Amino acid sequence: MKATVIGLGLIGGSFALSLKDKGLYDSVMGIEHSEKSAQRALELGLVERIVSLDEALSESQLIVLATPVDIIPTLATKILNRIRPDQILMDMGSTKQELCEIVMMHPNRSRLVATHPMWGTENSGPEAAQHDAFAGRTVVICESELSDKDALQQVEKIYNSLGMPIRYMSAEEQDTHCAYVSHISHITSFALALTVLEKEREEEHIFDLAGGGFESTVRLAKSLPQTWAPIFLQNKYNVLDVLREHIHQLQILRRMIERDDRDGLLDAMKKANKIREILD
Amino acid sequence: MKATVIGLGLIGGSFALSLKDKGLYDSVMGIEHSEKSAQRALELGLVERIVSLDEALSESQLIVLATPVDIIPTLATKILNRIRPDQILMDMGSTKQELCEIVMMHPNRSRLVATHPMWGTENSGPEAAQHDAFAGRTVVICESELSDKDALQQVEKIYNSLGMPIRYMSAEEQDTHCAYVSHISHITSFALALTVLEKEREEEHIFDLAGGGFESTVRLAKSLPQTWAPIFLQNKYNVLDVLREHIHQLQILRRMIERDDRDGLLDAMKKANKIREILD
Repeated sequence: MKATVIGLGLIGGSFALSLKDKGLYDSVMGIEHSEKSAQRALELGLVERIVSLDEALSESQLIVLATPVDIIPTLATKILNRIRPDQILMDMGSTKQELCEIVMMHPNRSRLVATHPMWGTENSGPEAAQHDAFAGRTVVICESELSDKDALQQVEKIYNSLGMPIRYMSAEEQDTHCAYVSHISHITSFALALTVLEKEREEEHIFDLAGGGFESTVRLAKSLPQTWAPIFLQNKYNVLDVLREHIHQLQILRRMIERDDRDGLLDAMKKANKIREILD
Repeated sequence: MKATVIGLGLIGGSFALSLKDKGLYDSVMGIEHSEKSAQRALELGLVERIVSLDEALSESQLIVLATPVDIIPTLATKILNRIRPDQILMDMGSTKQELCEIVMMHPNRSRLVATHPMWGTENSGPEAAQHDAFAGRTVVICESELSDKDALQQVEKIYNSLGMPIRYMSAEEQDTHCAYVSHISHITSFALALTVLEKEREEEHIFDLAGGGFESTVRLAKSLPQTWAPIFLQNKYNVLDVLREHIHQLQILRRMIERDDRDGLLDAMKKANKIREILD
């Protein structure tokens, strides 16, 4: 059995390693737009060889889309146009509504399994790929009822062997929840980095004084713009909704500080503390 | 040599452990407002015994203030009122202007060394205290020229033996920089937790889907309100300044998403990426 991963960055590279590490596919090939990244992926042993889309379509039982989300819908369509009934296409993008809408009427829609593994780091490119990256993280599968049983089962088998609990959702639900628990964190982190870079001209002080708290809140601001801009734009409606609420909450805290409203601050922060019960 | 730490939570408890671990003081005693925390501190071996302020003042060569910052200025004044010339008072609070202003004219001002070790976690209370907590983190000493040489040298010796690089600043500088690299991170984290708790009623989904990114940006929202409300209010001017800029940056990103301004988003995020060079 052969698999081809398209996009050999953090997610695709790590997934290629997992497919090989778990012995799920005899050979894992790669397609990568950037020649430099393709070369690095080979050097790092993420894939056995770099192939063309034609080669991938003729040789692979599984094709995996791990590119930025703005490319996924058209690429998925092109592949579904030529896919054989014994082949499976899956994607790993962070947004799902756009993809699911674009392929909705495609005669080969059922060969696609739309997934979103909830894992990532602030690093990018082939160098960021890790062995055992996904273990223990949840993966969302969207519109599973529209995928053929054999395709769905094979993708479930892969994620099971990676140790990932699977949740089934509509594309709409997935995009809403991910705006809350993933996309907004990235936006606040980018904004925080911009704030500090804007206000704190003395970089030496950032470096010297930044404690663990600062590092953890701005960590995501190191993430790749080419990955995240398309996610924010594809999930625009939900992201704007959560962003509006977040700015509102910041304004409430700001007004409390302006008015020396100690009790109000204590109440709000006690309410925020509830996140501990949910996460721990 | 004996030391007394006032306030046996995360910071005071960890510092008490360090003073003992490094063999800097033969005996470390504690003063703790909460009876329950006092009991826990004894059980956990953070201090040898719980003492009164009278006992502390009669027996200790070093007295350490590690309470919330709203109590530090008055407590410092009371202790300076009764301190002997062979005794040293130091504080570990996150804000410095208020303290330094309150003790400015005190005849015993020179027995105080005002410090801020840049370490903390989202946990609180005696249970949160750690061995070797401060190693490698920067400590700020404010207005060092107003402390007696012997007092300053002893405090420097303590922080050196803890492996902490020392930076010297005015109280004003310290409060400005800490608004940027510490206080604002806590505010955004609290606001983010409130946003998600407000919008995402289905807690199960937060729990299932929250990846590492979300956890790291909301981690600080678990912090103790009683510690942080006084910090925000004492550093009000700087905190509001940074908060205003942060809301402004979020509004810029929001407008870009609204207008599908992909290039603008990419530019802003590339700029934010610069934080990697500073932190790594």
